[in-house]
Amino acid sequence: MARLDPALQALALDPVPERNRNDWSSLDPQSPVALFRPRTTEDVAAIMTAAHTTGTVVVPQGGLTGLSGGARPIEGGVALSLERMTGVIDVDEAASTMTVWAGTPLEVIQKAAEERGLYFSLDLGARGSCAIGGNVSTNAGGNRVIRYGMARDLVLGMEVVLPDGTVLTNLNKMMKNNTGYDLKQLFIGAEGTLGIITRLVLKLHPLPGATHAAVLGAASYDAVLNMLTAARRGLGPNLSAFEVMWPDYWNIAMRAEGVRSPLAGEHAFYVLIESQGTDEGIDGARFEKFLEALFEQGVIEDGAMSQSLSDVKAFWATRDAAAEFKALLGPHMAYDVSMSVGRMDEYAQACRTRLARDVPGCLSCYYGHIGDGNLHLLAWVPGDAAQPQAEISKVVYEIIRDFGGSISAEHGIGLTKKPYLSYSRSPEELALMARIKAALDPKGILNPGKVIDAPLPATEDRT
Amino acid sequence: MARLDPALQALALDPVPERNRNDWSSLDPQSPVALFRPRTTEDVAAIMTAAHTTGTVVVPQGGLTGLSGGARPIEGGVALSLERMTGVIDVDEAASTMTVWAGTPLEVIQKAAEERGLYFSLDLGARGSCAIGGNVSTNAGGNRVIRYGMARDLVLGMEVVLPDGTVLTNLNKMMKNNTGYDLKQLFIGAEGTLGIITRLVLKLHPLPGATHAAVLGAASYDAVLNMLTAARRGLGPNLSAFEVMWPDYWNIAMRAEGVRSPLAGEHAFYVLIESQGTDEGIDGARFEKFLEALFEQGVIEDGAMSQSLSDVKAFWATRDAAAEFKALLGPHMAYDVSMSVGRMDEYAQACRTRLARDVPGCLSCYYGHIGDGNLHLLAWVPGDAAQPQAEISKVVYEIIRDFGGSISAEHGIGLTKKPYLSYSRSPEELALMARIKAALDPKGILNPGKVIDAPLPATEDRT
Repeated sequence: MARLDPALQALALDPVPERNRNDWSSLDPQSPVALFRPRTTEDVAAIMTAAHTTGTVVVPQGGLTGLSGGARPIEGGVALSLERMTGVIDVDEAASTMTVWAGTPLEVIQKAAEERGLYFSLDLGARGSCAIGGNVSTNAGGNRVIRYGMARDLVLGMEVVLPDGTVLTNLNKMMKNNTGYDLKQLFIGAEGTLGIITRLVLKLHPLPGATHAAVLGAASYDAVLNMLTAARRGLGPNLSAFEVMWPDYWNIAMRAEGVRSPLAGEHAFYVLIESQGTDEGIDGARFEKFLEALFEQGVIEDGAMSQSLSDVKAFWATRDAAAEFKALLGPHMAYDVSMSVGRMDEYAQACRTRLARDVPGCLSCYYGHIGDGNLHLLAWVPGDAAQPQAEISKVVYEIIRDFGGSISAEHGIGLTKKPYLSYSRSPEELALMARIKAALDPKGILNPGKVIDAPLPATEDRT
Repeated sequence: MARLDPALQALALDPVPERNRNDWSSLDPQSPVALFRPRTTEDVAAIMTAAHTTGTVVVPQGGLTGLSGGARPIEGGVALSLERMTGVIDVDEAASTMTVWAGTPLEVIQKAAEERGLYFSLDLGARGSCAIGGNVSTNAGGNRVIRYGMARDLVLGMEVVLPDGTVLTNLNKMMKNNTGYDLKQLFIGAEGTLGIITRLVLKLHPLPGATHAAVLGAASYDAVLNMLTAARRGLGPNLSAFEVMWPDYWNIAMRAEGVRSPLAGEHAFYVLIESQGTDEGIDGARFEKFLEALFEQGVIEDGAMSQSLSDVKAFWATRDAAAEFKALLGPHMAYDVSMSVGRMDEYAQACRTRLARDVPGCLSCYYGHIGDGNLHLLAWVPGDAAQPQAEISKVVYEIIRDFGGSISAEHGIGLTKKPYLSYSRSPEELALMARIKAALDPKGILNPGKVIDAPLPATEDRT
């Protein structure tokens, strides 16, 4: 650090606040050598140029809400937080785009869009804390991917600082732009290992004019799949969420505060379907017609349709109850996997059985964004002892590997899932990732060791 | 070539057919030294391994319908056509995906989806001839990007052979998969310079149950922009096309065979709006309500709404008439640019004026996928003399540069637009593209000199 420019040193904050020593992963905190809080892209470029020259390791930080350790500082390295680079720069209504600084919290963006009758569709629980730069760097997903796609699908333009301090600025607002390699794709989902995103042009949608939802009980997974096909056809592009909860999840959710079952009786599967339309009358009628057809076909055992937006909220409370499970279950492990939609119940059954068999006393429960092929699962051994993390992860990920699924649907790899990355990606893919990393960051100074193993070069190589 | 394996030599076709000597660009044909037509991914890998070892230049070919020269052979190099690697491998209805060989014609894929009540949304004029591998390699767009996105948005999984013969197989069917770098993004839109796509997993949508369209006349570009905002809000995600035609285009289209004006009178702008819904009754009523509101707001001067699918087809005939303009106009230059939606008419005016001023006798006409920010324009000097290509391109692209637009919205760069790439991309971006190319193809053997200038290394370096 001694070789950094004195002007840059002045940007460093000392002592480093507690919050910048970790993200939301369960890893131990790690203090960085220094914390930089640049105000401009030029500041970021100057810091990276100096870091590149001196071989200093830099870990970029956004809202620090990541669950995989991607923003956790590295011993001996500095942290670079985007927390001062916030705010909406421009809303272009004709192009339906918003240009923002990367440190802007997601919720600020959502509200700025809403104020103009527009909609930024990315949404997740940490919306008040997470930063859009982090959302894009981790290719965040969330509840409405089935309709609007992941963060990747919402990025039109980007400014990014490369590990050597080069600034790439392409604040493109156009949906169609085939002028050479689409470089921004490299940085989306790279978890801050290839560059530091400083500005973004985001794609907006029209603000939905009407939202309807239903909670439905089904007797079999086949019935759930039929329902998904029917929802895709009957609701078309209005379909904005298709969430499935297994009874093991549902029964815990019913014990969470403020959650009441909209359904009488017990079912093998509980499905939450949401439709976002433009017109209360037209789209309400469409939703009702769709549900009636499902009943007539005998696909549903029981169902409740929202009569108001507060019903929609209440339905989501069953799905969002997972956030309160810590109080109900005590310490537990949370997983985020994806696989072929058709095999999800088979996976849940296999995982439940093998966890109970191979990890003494282990319970588990299942729920997720089934329309996207994304399953969440919680696993825990009741009691006060430390959770057998490695044993549980082994079972969860080994079955995913056997199913040809993904060990991370939306939470990324960071540090905590890196040991299992080879379960979902081939040696050839991992080798190409390393080749890309080396091409963009030959000195291995930007968030090294995250996502893929790119060992820190020896000190003498880093000058 | 002498050092290729004899078994591979047997795969080569001699003599090379006329069609494999060029694509649909206006460049002169170039015969490759040999033409390979592999049947399997292993064949492709073996050819690339041999080519890498011997330093042989390889140009991949799909349906050869590209307009920018990306698939045109290179002097002294071989061509590798995917024409024998065709067919649908798998349709997964629960996941709503289709797995195909890269040489499969687009239209075959569209029909295979339709047979199962599903929809592959990519569509363009060359559908019967173009291959999906080429569509993805050029990130093709087409008519319904405003709703479904570009080819990039329709690719979930990919198998690709790298320049050194390494096979990367990731036939992912999941919408959410954040396991390290999303490598497939590298190859989408890279025009065959980074790898040869052999298989693809494509995202399908439900087959639209109801299609409605209208042709509307507007008095000003502001009215067109108001119409676009109203269409986004009023039709929501049903909005599947928003095409605008300037009078110079419209008046030529009206002279094309089989095209009749659905509107009486003359207008400053002609707009074609299409809506794809799920239900004839519900979505027809919505479309009518939307049009009525436009009339009431005084945004439209005149309009015609489709009463049947044959009306929809007839409306599209006005937009598709461009394919017949060669007979009407004689030789002409076609451009495909994109820019901020709000400034398109300003661009059209500037371009029309400067072409008339700087290129003696030059006429031009304007139309495009305005909802996507994509403008097409035709320019020509009437008569039998050769078109002043360089002079016309200079005007078209210089104004695009001044507008901060893109010199290629959907047709790619290939050879013909390479001289102008710096008009849309910065030196830093071009340098990073070259770095990526060098990282994936260190010997510069795969489609070298396309998209970016990566000069062929000297022969002694290529062994």
